[in-house]
Amino acid sequence: MIEACICTIGDEILIGQIVDSNSAQISKELNSIGVKINTIISIGDEYNQIVSTLQELVQKFQIVIVTGGLGPTKDDITKKALAELTGASGYIFSIEQYKYIEEIFTRRRIPVSDLNRDQAMVPDSCNVIPNKKGTAPGMVFSIKSNKKSLLFSLPGVPYEMENLLPSVEEIISSEFNLESISHKTIATYGIPESTLAEFLNDWEDNLPKDIKLAYLPNPAIGIRLRLSVYNGNSEESRKRVKLYAQELKSLLTEELYYGEDFDTLESVVSKKLRENGYQISVAESCTGGRISSLITSIPGSSQVYNGGIVSYSNHVKVSSLNVKEETIKNHGAVSKQCAQEMAEGAKKIFNSDFAIATTGIAGPTGGTEEKPVGTIWIAVAGPSRTYSMEARFFGDRERNIIRFSSEALNFTRKIIQKELKANTLTSKQYNR
Amino acid sequence: MIEACICTIGDEILIGQIVDSNSAQISKELNSIGVKINTIISIGDEYNQIVSTLQELVQKFQIVIVTGGLGPTKDDITKKALAELTGASGYIFSIEQYKYIEEIFTRRRIPVSDLNRDQAMVPDSCNVIPNKKGTAPGMVFSIKSNKKSLLFSLPGVPYEMENLLPSVEEIISSEFNLESISHKTIATYGIPESTLAEFLNDWEDNLPKDIKLAYLPNPAIGIRLRLSVYNGNSEESRKRVKLYAQELKSLLTEELYYGEDFDTLESVVSKKLRENGYQISVAESCTGGRISSLITSIPGSSQVYNGGIVSYSNHVKVSSLNVKEETIKNHGAVSKQCAQEMAEGAKKIFNSDFAIATTGIAGPTGGTEEKPVGTIWIAVAGPSRTYSMEARFFGDRERNIIRFSSEALNFTRKIIQKELKANTLTSKQYNR
Repeated sequence: MIEACICTIGDEILIGQIVDSNSAQISKELNSIGVKINTIISIGDEYNQIVSTLQELVQKFQIVIVTGGLGPTKDDITKKALAELTGASGYIFSIEQYKYIEEIFTRRRIPVSDLNRDQAMVPDSCNVIPNKKGTAPGMVFSIKSNKKSLLFSLPGVPYEMENLLPSVEEIISSEFNLESISHKTIATYGIPESTLAEFLNDWEDNLPKDIKLAYLPNPAIGIRLRLSVYNGNSEESRKRVKLYAQELKSLLTEELYYGEDFDTLESVVSKKLRENGYQISVAESCTGGRISSLITSIPGSSQVYNGGIVSYSNHVKVSSLNVKEETIKNHGAVSKQCAQEMAEGAKKIFNSDFAIATTGIAGPTGGTEEKPVGTIWIAVAGPSRTYSMEARFFGDRERNIIRFSSEALNFTRKIIQKELKANTLTSKQYNR
Repeated sequence: MIEACICTIGDEILIGQIVDSNSAQISKELNSIGVKINTIISIGDEYNQIVSTLQELVQKFQIVIVTGGLGPTKDDITKKALAELTGASGYIFSIEQYKYIEEIFTRRRIPVSDLNRDQAMVPDSCNVIPNKKGTAPGMVFSIKSNKKSLLFSLPGVPYEMENLLPSVEEIISSEFNLESISHKTIATYGIPESTLAEFLNDWEDNLPKDIKLAYLPNPAIGIRLRLSVYNGNSEESRKRVKLYAQELKSLLTEELYYGEDFDTLESVVSKKLRENGYQISVAESCTGGRISSLITSIPGSSQVYNGGIVSYSNHVKVSSLNVKEETIKNHGAVSKQCAQEMAEGAKKIFNSDFAIATTGIAGPTGGTEEKPVGTIWIAVAGPSRTYSMEARFFGDRERNIIRFSSEALNFTRKIIQKELKANTLTSKQYNR
């Protein structure tokens, strides 16, 4: 199994000013073509540390992917380090990359600066991987050591880096003969990790030795269960992983699992609505627009989502969603009654088949004895009736808003399923 | 200068299923107390790799922070590796940690499982750092090597890890005598990195050798400029960094810079509104709720934000925001006129001082010859008049929505400044 190392360069990572999302992206992609990431390492913009670290890595690994340190500005010294490391005799001007640099600046209606022109200069020891989306070219160096190894250098801007990955994969696939790695992930929501682990204990114990089960908790997505088979025949291991994934699903039932691989609650809700020709609207208080934002992040959401209201103040709940003033006076804004009237108001105003409503206390202030910070009421108005639930979380403001939104989307997912079972509904898709 | 290494453990990182946000958080915190992070490394859930990697790290660094691999489930083997590495003679039961485990389960109204009880078992070679927010305790081991070094083991769940950091910092500060690191960051928006770099070129060349300037581009936040001084007298270097930050600001002017350190466009807009007693509302089409979500992510936003409408369909633009049908027929939904009517509609409906409106094409579909994907019209209705602007971006759907929202918030920031200069406005804060 070919193993790779990812090395991200930049002080901004070491002082925590940015999160290194590139490594996850690269790992995901390389994994899918059968390259196992052994180590991810982040170092600073120090010339000597870069050279010595990379020297070590190209001895240890057949594939080394370097990102960052290629920008036009003074804090970027990676290119110099790579030239030394790979014994370049000088720099050459990449006409192809310069063409893209010019295009970008023409589009932005500004002249190409000297700094950007210099970005087309590369060590003569590399082959250029042209960067159509940005100014810094990708580079690949083949290192002469005990065994063949390739060092790739990619820009640190995620969007540009991602656009170079396909070329990187192409080069790797042609240079090495790769074994397979098969993963299958089942997404669950609404059950604590330990409870899930005990529930699956016996099943996990009986898994074949070469199949690995991993638990990946995430406040927005829930707990994803990942089944992995490393090496072995690709076709066969893919089949086997699929098989065990099926077993897992039937154990969990639709109550607990909602999707596969990179599905999210919003992508699943969106898919269910689209497949059945339904539209949804949203009335949000404590989630402040996050639920609408999640649903509309899915391409083609205009088919399933037509509008939403963020009714942050009580006044707006009454004026824009027709919540009764007495309801708020008698039960408070964070109540079953208010949530239901919000959902019914949105469903009517936007003339949608379903409507989600949230009202709760995200914190840090606003909590009371019987309604502490982290309390939320969720309502979903469906074609046949309105459903509601209460939940309580124990996080800070940011985390509570995330959990509130995911809880609401998961509740919506279940209600849509429930309502779909009613004939009144299923007939509808044929009428559209 | 004491240097530390962060080691995050988990296959999920190496296959790109999760992004390692813990390291950024830890780096930020340790940096603030004068610990320099030299390296961040991520490895998989393999017993031997964990032991050998940590063995190497405790020789190289005086502080090693390990996160991950402490969950209740089978894929977690870090604790065993740490016991071997630190020559534990066995495990002991942490009564204090168990108390917190019990509390958590009582609150969730479920019994403590065996798996969770086991989490209170720790190697007898460590001191426990109790985890009040989760089930896995933090641990600190002092390693007997050539020089004193400490190894910390923290849970991988970000929320739990963050809650243990203060204790970690306390222990580090008491065990080592720390020098200072001073950073000051200036947040800019709306200027390309290379243009900014050329603009600041001479100023940067004249910076003292021990002061470092770094460029941190981010699609949502803009380009942050970070000035750093490592070591030296803390009081003095803090003063010097502040001084140069002041110079930088006056060079950039309020047109380009909007905040400092961890300010965001939404936190700055929110602050400006709160300080002056104004309220804002939002009418979003292409940004789908993201702008409302960003503003309401700031604690206390209910003072400055009362509501928003996500008018995704043209029908809703007309019915909920009173956009004229002719406007959409004559100019299209993505037009200056529509954006302005949306903003004015929201301002009226929510009776706010300002209102932001966005209408554009996020993609992947919906683009035309003269209005390609990435086109947006932004309008801000202010007390004295309505302002609007067009912008064009070249990203995918996700990136366009991010850029659209930040562009709108930055435009709003400038309009609020402009309107504040009019007396009619400034008087208002006294009337409240």
